[in-house]
Amino acid sequence: MKKPTWVIEKERSKRAAAAETVWLFGLHAVRDALMNPQRERLRLVVTKNAADRLADAIAVCGMEPEISDPRKFAAPIDSGSVHQGAALEVKPLDWGALTELCEPKLASPRVVLLDRVTDPHNVGAILRSAEVFGARAVIAPHRHSAPETGALAKTASGALERQPYLRVQNLADAMEDLRRMGYVLLGLDGTAELSLDDALAKAGDVPVGLVLGAEGPGLRERTRATCDHLVKIPFAGAFGSLNVSNAAAVALYAARRV
Amino acid sequence: MKKPTWVIEKERSKRAAAAETVWLFGLHAVRDALMNPQRERLRLVVTKNAADRLADAIAVCGMEPEISDPRKFAAPIDSGSVHQGAALEVKPLDWGALTELCEPKLASPRVVLLDRVTDPHNVGAILRSAEVFGARAVIAPHRHSAPETGALAKTASGALERQPYLRVQNLADAMEDLRRMGYVLLGLDGTAELSLDDALAKAGDVPVGLVLGAEGPGLRERTRATCDHLVKIPFAGAFGSLNVSNAAAVALYAARRV
Repeated sequence: MKKPTWVIEKERSKRAAAAETVWLFGLHAVRDALMNPQRERLRLVVTKNAADRLADAIAVCGMEPEISDPRKFAAPIDSGSVHQGAALEVKPLDWGALTELCEPKLASPRVVLLDRVTDPHNVGAILRSAEVFGARAVIAPHRHSAPETGALAKTASGALERQPYLRVQNLADAMEDLRRMGYVLLGLDGTAELSLDDALAKAGDVPVGLVLGAEGPGLRERTRATCDHLVKIPFAGAFGSLNVSNAAAVALYAARRV
Repeated sequence: MKKPTWVIEKERSKRAAAAETVWLFGLHAVRDALMNPQRERLRLVVTKNAADRLADAIAVCGMEPEISDPRKFAAPIDSGSVHQGAALEVKPLDWGALTELCEPKLASPRVVLLDRVTDPHNVGAILRSAEVFGARAVIAPHRHSAPETGALAKTASGALERQPYLRVQNLADAMEDLRRMGYVLLGLDGTAELSLDDALAKAGDVPVGLVLGAEGPGLRERTRATCDHLVKIPFAGAFGSLNVSNAAAVALYAARRV
């Protein structure tokens, strides 16, 4: 029997994902990826100088670096990239299934959900905040999100290696999964009546999902409808709005478990 | 009698500052600058399309726009700038003297001090957070800070028109001025023992200055020495650090007066 088209499509995209590689660049991002035992590495291209500065990390991971002339750097990355003489080809990290990663067990974890936040600078900063405040995962849809790229790794400043960043087929479905696992889903919305603090106090010691949309469009209709509550960050000013990564940091701080 | 060299220098730099102009660009930044009665405006260059979209703001400010062909946009801005067909030449805003602007009067204001934070994206996001959480001013030294440019205005998303951004000759001197006015100066430092929350609780209802350094180098020696306390944002993770604008947002939120 012939396979139906959708099965063929699914297998093809799975093979493509498995074949997909990313070039990380910059001393910090490359060092952290070299030190990460979970990271599948393919090629390391470095200048003599960068090889010296990364000597410890290269020794730890046991890779053979390809030494490149700094004037014609041999890695296939954008010419504008601030690579500092170091580039590493890797496979994207596999963080496993959402249901396992976010399983509350005996704790009350926090997760961050991003609805079409595409700017790698914002997503990189959010990964850093998620790591600092101990969030279990940052979850975004496959489409219309920031893919795992060298630019994201650089702005994440190492957090990409340690902070689970999970991209899912459908954000609202992932939210439903989380709700079934006991999560309360709070969508950030500047026009909401309820304050984040009041919502957190009311929720008590339960798993919490913080849902943020892109600046401008905000949360999409289905995302809003899937939240348990829409909440706003309390503020004094009548004007203005927070940058999305700043809003995420404040929400993670407010929701931290001390 | 001949003027001494330093007087001549000072007068020259004063004249240069008075003559200095900035090209703002992008619909949002240009609209907010057109609507700001404090803003001294020189030239407005717009495409026909942008003129239509800004018609209300142009009517309010009464400027005569120069209509430009979108294919050879006539404003002298970087070719890579996302100007959306709108550019406005302005004088930097004059926020007056620090001592007047930050005078506590009957309130307990918050101010943010930036020690060599030069990235316009970070400073723009910090201006937005400062506005949202009602900080009296964001203060930075003249040298080694983000000047008022089109790129800063764009990332500040309107906040540059409304949030005082004061650049001073010497940051430590400005800190001493604030201390004399009753401010408690808290320097953010990931290695500090004292938590920001504890320091704020101990300080009580007083004016607070939040001092942040650039990522990497952190606070300079004299800046550290001039703080009343070094404090850290409480966190769960053993690794990682916050992006500087994220740290500023969390500190402003923690220090907000509710």
